[in-house]
Amino acid sequence: MSQTEISIRKLERMRILLREIEYLKHTLNATLYWDKLTYMPEKGLAYRSEVMTFLGNQLYERFDSAELRQLADYFDGRRGNAPEVDAMIRRIRNHDIYIRKIPQKEYSSYISLIVNAERGWEQAREENQFSTFAPYLERIVAAFQSFSAHWGYEEDPYDALMSFYEPGSTVREMDRLAEELRDFVVPLFHQIRGQMAESPSRPDFALPLEEQRRLSRQVLETIGFDFAAGRLDEGTHPTTLAASPKDVRILTAYTPDDLRSGFFNTLHEGGMGLYEQDIDPNLAGTLLGEVASFATEVAAARLYENLIGRSAGFWRVFFPKMKELCPSLAVPNWEAMFRGVNQVSPTLIRNDADELTYPLHILIRYEVEKDLIHGRLSVRDLPEVWAEKYRTYLGVIPSNHREGVLQDIQWAAGYMGYFPGYLTSNLMAAQFAAAMERSLGPIQTLLSQRRFEDIHQWLAEYVYRFGALYPPGELVRRATGEPLKTSYFIDYLREKYTAVYQLKK
Amino acid sequence: MSQTEISIRKLERMRILLREIEYLKHTLNATLYWDKLTYMPEKGLAYRSEVMTFLGNQLYERFDSAELRQLADYFDGRRGNAPEVDAMIRRIRNHDIYIRKIPQKEYSSYISLIVNAERGWEQAREENQFSTFAPYLERIVAAFQSFSAHWGYEEDPYDALMSFYEPGSTVREMDRLAEELRDFVVPLFHQIRGQMAESPSRPDFALPLEEQRRLSRQVLETIGFDFAAGRLDEGTHPTTLAASPKDVRILTAYTPDDLRSGFFNTLHEGGMGLYEQDIDPNLAGTLLGEVASFATEVAAARLYENLIGRSAGFWRVFFPKMKELCPSLAVPNWEAMFRGVNQVSPTLIRNDADELTYPLHILIRYEVEKDLIHGRLSVRDLPEVWAEKYRTYLGVIPSNHREGVLQDIQWAAGYMGYFPGYLTSNLMAAQFAAAMERSLGPIQTLLSQRRFEDIHQWLAEYVYRFGALYPPGELVRRATGEPLKTSYFIDYLREKYTAVYQLKK
Repeated sequence: MSQTEISIRKLERMRILLREIEYLKHTLNATLYWDKLTYMPEKGLAYRSEVMTFLGNQLYERFDSAELRQLADYFDGRRGNAPEVDAMIRRIRNHDIYIRKIPQKEYSSYISLIVNAERGWEQAREENQFSTFAPYLERIVAAFQSFSAHWGYEEDPYDALMSFYEPGSTVREMDRLAEELRDFVVPLFHQIRGQMAESPSRPDFALPLEEQRRLSRQVLETIGFDFAAGRLDEGTHPTTLAASPKDVRILTAYTPDDLRSGFFNTLHEGGMGLYEQDIDPNLAGTLLGEVASFATEVAAARLYENLIGRSAGFWRVFFPKMKELCPSLAVPNWEAMFRGVNQVSPTLIRNDADELTYPLHILIRYEVEKDLIHGRLSVRDLPEVWAEKYRTYLGVIPSNHREGVLQDIQWAAGYMGYFPGYLTSNLMAAQFAAAMERSLGPIQTLLSQRRFEDIHQWLAEYVYRFGALYPPGELVRRATGEPLKTSYFIDYLREKYTAVYQLKK
Repeated sequence: MSQTEISIRKLERMRILLREIEYLKHTLNATLYWDKLTYMPEKGLAYRSEVMTFLGNQLYERFDSAELRQLADYFDGRRGNAPEVDAMIRRIRNHDIYIRKIPQKEYSSYISLIVNAERGWEQAREENQFSTFAPYLERIVAAFQSFSAHWGYEEDPYDALMSFYEPGSTVREMDRLAEELRDFVVPLFHQIRGQMAESPSRPDFALPLEEQRRLSRQVLETIGFDFAAGRLDEGTHPTTLAASPKDVRILTAYTPDDLRSGFFNTLHEGGMGLYEQDIDPNLAGTLLGEVASFATEVAAARLYENLIGRSAGFWRVFFPKMKELCPSLAVPNWEAMFRGVNQVSPTLIRNDADELTYPLHILIRYEVEKDLIHGRLSVRDLPEVWAEKYRTYLGVIPSNHREGVLQDIQWAAGYMGYFPGYLTSNLMAAQFAAAMERSLGPIQTLLSQRRFEDIHQWLAEYVYRFGALYPPGELVRRATGEPLKTSYFIDYLREKYTAVYQLKK
């Protein structure tokens, strides 16, 4: 058998193993998890947790198998592999670092901790008792301190946690980006804040849930979400889960007294949903049929939520449809809608934050997470430190834990080092949009011509279809011709808020 | 290590292996299958099929593992096992007999036969051409003749087929039960038939779907279905799927122009749902945390659907609630409802049959199936024999094959020896009810006192909680003190139809 034949056979075998890993991964992380979040009866939790722990172990064992490792070693040492093969090896190695370095027993106990922690978080929210959740959070912080030691890092244990989501992230670099953004956002926020009182009075954004549901479905159809290959459901926390590019499930959450909350939840997840649906199905069985990274996926979300969904061009064409679908709508015209979705106001809830102050919510999480991991902040003191930071950056203080430290499910679900991706995602979204405009013309013109499909196709062609074939940094360079920068996002914010608040340029 | 210690360790290991088998089985047959039937987007099917095939193979390999077989051998040879251990071995052996004894090649060719046979059946129905389906049915009959030889039997090859569904069933016994039933039902049916024209005119049973949904939920709550441990959804075919006793999912199907269809679909599945929810959770990890058999589960369904749901006592207390929930209901009073759900009419379609004539539809299938397996009836002659039996028993003749031999998918799907369970299930339901009445008093009195919970608890205590710990025959003897008999069902039918049709006693 020639060397080429040997390589072909080994590649076939590797794809079979990876395909089976994907089956388990999708069953566990998409289908069973989706069911748990949506339709599972509450008493089903205990058994479901056992099943998920079992499948998690199966997944771990398969990644850990000698056969897969030998195959990866074979290709790792070779020159002239197809780019796809190199990318597969990169994904396997990434998994090696992040999963295999944790001892199996520690990993299993972490998995069952997380299942219970989510329940604990829900209960703590219901009771408004931080102390119900604190013991779980303490164990989660300890778990990630241990994980960062297993994973390894050069400068800072928090680097290891961020790199899990965005390979190559460092506190040093993130501190710099965060500072550039803060130096721009905080003064602009204070400038606008002085004018908030002058804003026209707020129209009534209440809307019956039934009409909000219709609206959400409509906006997903408008941007090109394929309902034959996806669903829209409701859950406590909005999220998007893909069992395959042909089975993408969006969870949204509505608030009866403010349609904007549910609408932008849906549009945010819808952006992710398009990304997932557009990944090349031929990447199945390679570990590459997934989004390139968390921040890349959020970039897709932000692009639709903010750059499109909070723009004048969008509301000019979408508002008549909305009026038609929602007989109870009290908002009088598209201008009122446009102003209403661009009001800047200091809020306690990250998910309700406007585009300008959102980065400040992320900064706070980034800072406290880093301190928890460094051991400079104890879980016990977290609510107080949290309140103090909100007072400093945004001038507001939570009156209960639901609008304070218990607002996000992320920590309960084991997302540590994850929030900074929300900063970089904004930068990516603005940079993708700028590249698209160089090719198709201004987004506002495209929207006024209802060219939603052209926008969608550009993104599919230059970003989405590649899945995880390229690391996020390379994907950005390929799609935009430049490395990631803050300037596109800063330019975008300056222009947007200058227009909305008629600021002097 | 003492022999006892060895046994304890081996038992622990066996339970771990069986528990993992159950995790896969529940994920595959309940959770993923439920999702496929309810909420999966249509383009998700191809990938889902791959995932399900993969998990199915995993399940097969685990059942087939040398380790599990060695453990079963160890306990199989021993005296003084706990009853639970003997029952576990019985379940493992049952799997061995029915799956492992068929040569792999024969089994594969059977599987692809079935896939094609279902399509052939659909096509034959469309064309109303029995000859399109006949060649498939001939091969299916031949396959099951061969299977019965592999599986083994003492007297009759058909015994082996029935025992797949109801361990220990014999033609000798089934012939006797069938004859007793036929000798009672046929004359009673002819007596009633003379009076059918005198029945009061049929009220309008149409009801908007939204009201039917409320009604279904209400009746499940009334009988004691725990919605914290279960759900009610809709699907093309009504079914009940249990991912665990705490996660039981009922699918029902409604017809807008006749509320009775959806109502009894729900009550039928609801009876099964109670059974599943009441199985002792401590049986998890033993293969015994399941219903005892197909007929046992259908007995639970029939008990609620017919003995309770078609009784005067039920409608007297339930009708006012129904009226309150369903403002569009046209049925004037409980008496009209009671009559409406007890009308007897000779139909050609098994699925539309009333309680009295239903057993005749099953008798016909039992008789022809047996004759096919014995080689006394050729597939070619089946439509003629079928028509003749319908004429004799029910006085009706099919005008096409869709309402004749092609009405059921079961043979095409490889269910041979399955229909007789529909007879025994009726006998079981009546026998359980009689035993309950000896202990709690007449069911009609219990219903008039709204003692649904007492009925439920009796069934849980004497039948449901045992899961598959006992074979069905033993379960019946333990719960009722007697072997399975026809007399309770016959008494029930006599009393019911004497009252409905004011027959002379």
